[in-house]
Amino acid sequence: MKKFRLLTPGPTAIPEKVLAKFAEPIVHHRTSLFEAQFKELQSQLQWLFQTKEIVLTLTSTGTGAMEAAVANLFSGMNASTPHADEVITVNAGKFGERWTKIAKAYNLNTHEIVVERGKAVTIAAIEKELRAHPQVKAVLFQASETSTGALMPIKAIADLCKKHQVLSVCDGITAVGIFDVPMDAWELDVLITGSQKALMLPPGLAFIALSARAWKANESSNLPKFYFDLKKERKAQEKMQTAWTPAISLVQGAVVSLKMLQDEGHQKLFATHEMLALATRNAATALGLELFSDAPSPVLTTVKVPAKFTVDEGKKIAKIMQEKYGVIITGGQDELMGKILRLSHFGYCDIFDVANGISALELALLELAYPLELGKGVAAVMKTFKDSGLAL
Amino acid sequence: MKKFRLLTPGPTAIPEKVLAKFAEPIVHHRTSLFEAQFKELQSQLQWLFQTKEIVLTLTSTGTGAMEAAVANLFSGMNASTPHADEVITVNAGKFGERWTKIAKAYNLNTHEIVVERGKAVTIAAIEKELRAHPQVKAVLFQASETSTGALMPIKAIADLCKKHQVLSVCDGITAVGIFDVPMDAWELDVLITGSQKALMLPPGLAFIALSARAWKANESSNLPKFYFDLKKERKAQEKMQTAWTPAISLVQGAVVSLKMLQDEGHQKLFATHEMLALATRNAATALGLELFSDAPSPVLTTVKVPAKFTVDEGKKIAKIMQEKYGVIITGGQDELMGKILRLSHFGYCDIFDVANGISALELALLELAYPLELGKGVAAVMKTFKDSGLAL
Repeated sequence: MKKFRLLTPGPTAIPEKVLAKFAEPIVHHRTSLFEAQFKELQSQLQWLFQTKEIVLTLTSTGTGAMEAAVANLFSGMNASTPHADEVITVNAGKFGERWTKIAKAYNLNTHEIVVERGKAVTIAAIEKELRAHPQVKAVLFQASETSTGALMPIKAIADLCKKHQVLSVCDGITAVGIFDVPMDAWELDVLITGSQKALMLPPGLAFIALSARAWKANESSNLPKFYFDLKKERKAQEKMQTAWTPAISLVQGAVVSLKMLQDEGHQKLFATHEMLALATRNAATALGLELFSDAPSPVLTTVKVPAKFTVDEGKKIAKIMQEKYGVIITGGQDELMGKILRLSHFGYCDIFDVANGISALELALLELAYPLELGKGVAAVMKTFKDSGLAL
Repeated sequence: MKKFRLLTPGPTAIPEKVLAKFAEPIVHHRTSLFEAQFKELQSQLQWLFQTKEIVLTLTSTGTGAMEAAVANLFSGMNASTPHADEVITVNAGKFGERWTKIAKAYNLNTHEIVVERGKAVTIAAIEKELRAHPQVKAVLFQASETSTGALMPIKAIADLCKKHQVLSVCDGITAVGIFDVPMDAWELDVLITGSQKALMLPPGLAFIALSARAWKANESSNLPKFYFDLKKERKAQEKMQTAWTPAISLVQGAVVSLKMLQDEGHQKLFATHEMLALATRNAATALGLELFSDAPSPVLTTVKVPAKFTVDEGKKIAKIMQEKYGVIITGGQDELMGKILRLSHFGYCDIFDVANGISALELALLELAYPLELGKGVAAVMKTFKDSGLAL
């Protein structure tokens, strides 16, 4: 009878009506039935990305789409190309570091900006690298760095890239559908997301859109690619098919979950996530906890493990929440392990879910002899909701 | 109320109890609950592949695993490597051609054996190429070529590779779990399958196992790889995790479907598929249809469209079967379009499903004025079943 509550940065909880869709018999992908659904999905994805470009569906997780961006835009050294392409990567956490690792796996000339954990990258830091390396072709960055909870200055990065005539390649895996990242309006060149985030689906699908400038870069790219060949995908997906067999059931679920997002509308969706984030920050403050990031994202809130706790005790907080109360949050990764807590508040998540998470956190902290007044965090959550004037 | 019946080479029909699993709330992958299921899956996959090696689970379709095999075993030309690795690819159809395309996408020195459509490759043809190119590192081939219905001499190819000390890289996407391909006993170096075939799951997972020799080749491979980095996957999967977020729901479904296959047992599974294939061939013969392949696979039966039909009429057969009778089969692809029919009989498919398929085929052929005696094909199906002595 024990209930589980996912307050994790992916997978997120899946709505019941989406789950029910997965229990339907599978359809074959080379049928008009599938093509009609895929057409619907494409239109929904354009709404989600706020773009007129085709949004390609890949059967992989978001990391596959990140690799696709690298393999499809750039060139390596070969007989006819004396130098590998140069790129700037913004490493503000584990996921930014992934851009660096992918670029290096393809032997690109990679200039990495390492940002202090919890901070957003500054425009000055990127501009400095761009000036130092005038051959740079692109800046690869996250919209929201999920490992630290820091929100990046996305529009300013896109503007800077435009000014320097380099491509802006944005990992929006925990951003798209959570807060406003209008691809066309901000002239982002690549935008990526995954199915198990705002889309409230199981992992297994990634989505990527390229601007006209990015497609032009694709024309001259010489890096090896096959499964993630975006040109081939575009050709197939323009005809409502995919280059390789798609993850059919996830595609069908996506049509259902995107309809739910569309019914909510961009404005309500973004306002709600802002409010859930504010509620979580207010709860943390009310409990005397310190925020880890000074550029907090609407996606997830990172709080420091209280100074009195050891790393091992820090790890225990999430463990107690999960094992005793069925509330699954994530702690810090790598060097942040046992030092921060990451409380996610997006996807199929409302203010009552956030309140549950804070209640479980309060109980876990009390058990570890952290002094707090039970219910004070939840009161802050509910007050934020009430004050926001937002309906469920 | 119209029922649909999938007699296609993937996706295949999904058992009801597997579909029901997909309707369960998702679990987080960084939990002991997931790890316990993944451990079970790994053991089931070793049973399926008949190997002691770890079978890696990738979130992609089978093509991703084919690319992984290439990217992880071979080396391209670079500063320290004056020549790209040489490989032999067996192109006996659309899927064999895919090996060639992948090897060429990675700029490998690729020697392609083109086999007449519908035929199996001969050992003599491969040996000739091996003698002509003594630097060759591997032979890349299909176990069963799904586009033509031809069964390849898998064990003989593996033996030949062993004799020449080259790697045998086998796409078993439509083979593993359908007929006997014992990886360890036959000393295959790479074996691959996908979720939407014998495993009776939606597309979205691929599985790949490497022999000790293949892992040794991996050590010196210099081709770029990230999402499909098998060494990284092995390290993670040995700890019951995955390098990237896995397609969690499909993993959970796989545990259920593999349990069903295990309950059936290898012997019954393989004998049943042999019998279903024989039943289909007998039905085709009874209806005066000619088999397309002289090395017919237990996976799917290819029959020639009767000579009196044009290509357009040939295409109509599957169209009528699908639109009027809800029975979905596949026709020929590319140059075989409108010239052959592909009747699949594997996965969650029994003799009554085969009978339904043949009934729909009889009706469609009659509608196109092909002379036949209604029911004669089905009678041949049921007689084959009865004579086999096999139970359902």
